[in-house]
Amino acid sequence: MSNSEKALKMHEQWNGKLETAAKARVNSREDLSIAYTPGVAEPCKVIAENPGAAYKYTIKANTVAVVSDGSAVLGLGNIGALAAMPVMEGKAVLFKEFGGVNAVPICLDTQDTEEIIKTVVNIAPAFGGINLEDISAPRCFEIENRLKELLDIPVFHDDQHGTAIVVLAGIINALKVTGKKKEECRVVVNGAGSAGVAITKLLLTYGFPHITMCDINGIISKESEGLNWMQKEMAEVTNLENRTGTLSDALKGADIFVGVSAPGIVSQEMVSSMNRDAILFAMANPVPEIMPDLAKAAGAKVVGTGRSDFPNQVNNVIAFPGIFKGALEGRAAQITEEMKLAAAEAIAGLVPDETLSEDNILPEAFDPRVAETVSRAIRERI
Amino acid sequence: MSNSEKALKMHEQWNGKLETAAKARVNSREDLSIAYTPGVAEPCKVIAENPGAAYKYTIKANTVAVVSDGSAVLGLGNIGALAAMPVMEGKAVLFKEFGGVNAVPICLDTQDTEEIIKTVVNIAPAFGGINLEDISAPRCFEIENRLKELLDIPVFHDDQHGTAIVVLAGIINALKVTGKKKEECRVVVNGAGSAGVAITKLLLTYGFPHITMCDINGIISKESEGLNWMQKEMAEVTNLENRTGTLSDALKGADIFVGVSAPGIVSQEMVSSMNRDAILFAMANPVPEIMPDLAKAAGAKVVGTGRSDFPNQVNNVIAFPGIFKGALEGRAAQITEEMKLAAAEAIAGLVPDETLSEDNILPEAFDPRVAETVSRAIRERI
Repeated sequence: MSNSEKALKMHEQWNGKLETAAKARVNSREDLSIAYTPGVAEPCKVIAENPGAAYKYTIKANTVAVVSDGSAVLGLGNIGALAAMPVMEGKAVLFKEFGGVNAVPICLDTQDTEEIIKTVVNIAPAFGGINLEDISAPRCFEIENRLKELLDIPVFHDDQHGTAIVVLAGIINALKVTGKKKEECRVVVNGAGSAGVAITKLLLTYGFPHITMCDINGIISKESEGLNWMQKEMAEVTNLENRTGTLSDALKGADIFVGVSAPGIVSQEMVSSMNRDAILFAMANPVPEIMPDLAKAAGAKVVGTGRSDFPNQVNNVIAFPGIFKGALEGRAAQITEEMKLAAAEAIAGLVPDETLSEDNILPEAFDPRVAETVSRAIRERI
Repeated sequence: MSNSEKALKMHEQWNGKLETAAKARVNSREDLSIAYTPGVAEPCKVIAENPGAAYKYTIKANTVAVVSDGSAVLGLGNIGALAAMPVMEGKAVLFKEFGGVNAVPICLDTQDTEEIIKTVVNIAPAFGGINLEDISAPRCFEIENRLKELLDIPVFHDDQHGTAIVVLAGIINALKVTGKKKEECRVVVNGAGSAGVAITKLLLTYGFPHITMCDINGIISKESEGLNWMQKEMAEVTNLENRTGTLSDALKGADIFVGVSAPGIVSQEMVSSMNRDAILFAMANPVPEIMPDLAKAAGAKVVGTGRSDFPNQVNNVIAFPGIFKGALEGRAAQITEEMKLAAAEAIAGLVPDETLSEDNILPEAFDPRVAETVSRAIRERI
């Protein structure tokens, strides 16, 4: 049976990958009078007086909403809210299994930016955090920014920041493997959607001064046409030499390629034109921008992909469960840039120098230390 | 330790009465590739083609949103969304423990009718049903009606219909105990909020022709002033003799009193003025309109309350878990009037004639047959 067939069969068998479970017992009238009326009035009254007590008495303490409008689901595109459900349920399962965080899929029957913002604000009281997922760019940027302003709980768009944090963690270790210095590296990020923008921003914050972004039309510069507002902002802080040209031009002499773009668009010639010991993160799914063996044969030193069947898998599950676990435990009001950097450093630190190699720059998703280590890094920055 | 103290202590210990649990295992890379990418794309694609498949592959099959704006919580009034959380979590626990239905508390940071409607419509894709809770009248009527029009999943305001169904079930059995006939009974419903209106409507549908509603100003008639739009509608179909006067006037010669009003407002004299073998449902909480022993001493035959420490407890948990269980299993698009009547008959039928008595007109909430029996009654009417 193929993976596809098995996935369909298992999803039918599960009939929903998630369920709710009662922590409170209600096996007797006395139980009912404690967990429900009349006893339940007591925590209600305390919270009415002191809203912070919700973290003491309710699921807000440890529950995240996984919010999507279904506009940019996996590689499937704009399939809508209902069809996005299996992904959001899967995400909720990962939150629980990897981070011990309760998560509820909320798939929105609207793709209007203002309505999405209003809806999330309206449902926020029940939740301790909002994980945005699979919302198309550039709407995702505005939705996240506005929600961060409007809400006092962490708002985190995982496609952006989860990806960026794991890529940065991988790059931190790839620098050790190759002996490259961030100040001297020339970085090319191909793909100017949610992940590409967030990766670029985090790498800038981390201290990579020389980053060039490319999209389907080639190098993004101040003169590029058809950019959205976020890409225009990025054009101001990247490509400082204001170069123009193709992805191929951008890669000449580059040290690091980060692809969140399309299958097979990087050739061996392009890799050969990069600086020695090139680092490539080719994360197009399921087929990378260039296959690892081809990249290596063309001179690349470190190659990461989004796939579990090659070394150096960039998998967001390394980051988001621990990030929310830490943010909820420490009751962070926001996930700050400092926390993201700390999370990346913590992830990188999980690969000890003894085992660090070109084929081992990231911890395993199933490494039980990961969520705890990431959450500690977050808590220490609150 | 008092019930209040114990409730507060337990709520702190639970730190949220509910949690999510994974039905899908993710213990290996292969697991991940089935429950999450790339396998998860398969059910997504099927649902994108055929929305009905969401019931096959996702939690929509068996998950209800428990939605409140915190405007009319228990006897606490308008305490807001956050403070309503313990109640909504408790409700979600009851859904799971009594009906096997997953339920998620959604407490809304708005009390604007249009915004509530819009928000619930927007979050509906993830849910198989909407249980409205503790929303003040008359907004609750409009919100429920509009959502029923807009959504293709069951929408049910439990404070209205759950209460009405259990009261009707109790009355059906109380008629047997007293030998009264519905066509001949004079019914007084005191309280014209959500529960009072819904009880009156369901009793009318069941076939009680003579119902008089009262509110704080006495008998509701076509001439009453200050009625909201729903109360005006009720004035058209109740009090057919168009009487005026006080609750005391209304009760003279009445067979059935249903109180969803205020503590202690029915005197023994008022009970004595009722017809022989009077039936009283005195459901003000925690102190009834009249205490059962006083009512009985004044001549009442059957007395029900909302309390678990007296016989004949009117407890919504007898109804709502089974109602949604049945509606979800049968994929009902609505909870119809016919289903509500069927649920009430099914609940009444759970008390066999051998044990039926003035102090035993309703099944125990913990009777394991209840949810299954109610759900079957619902499924048979889909």
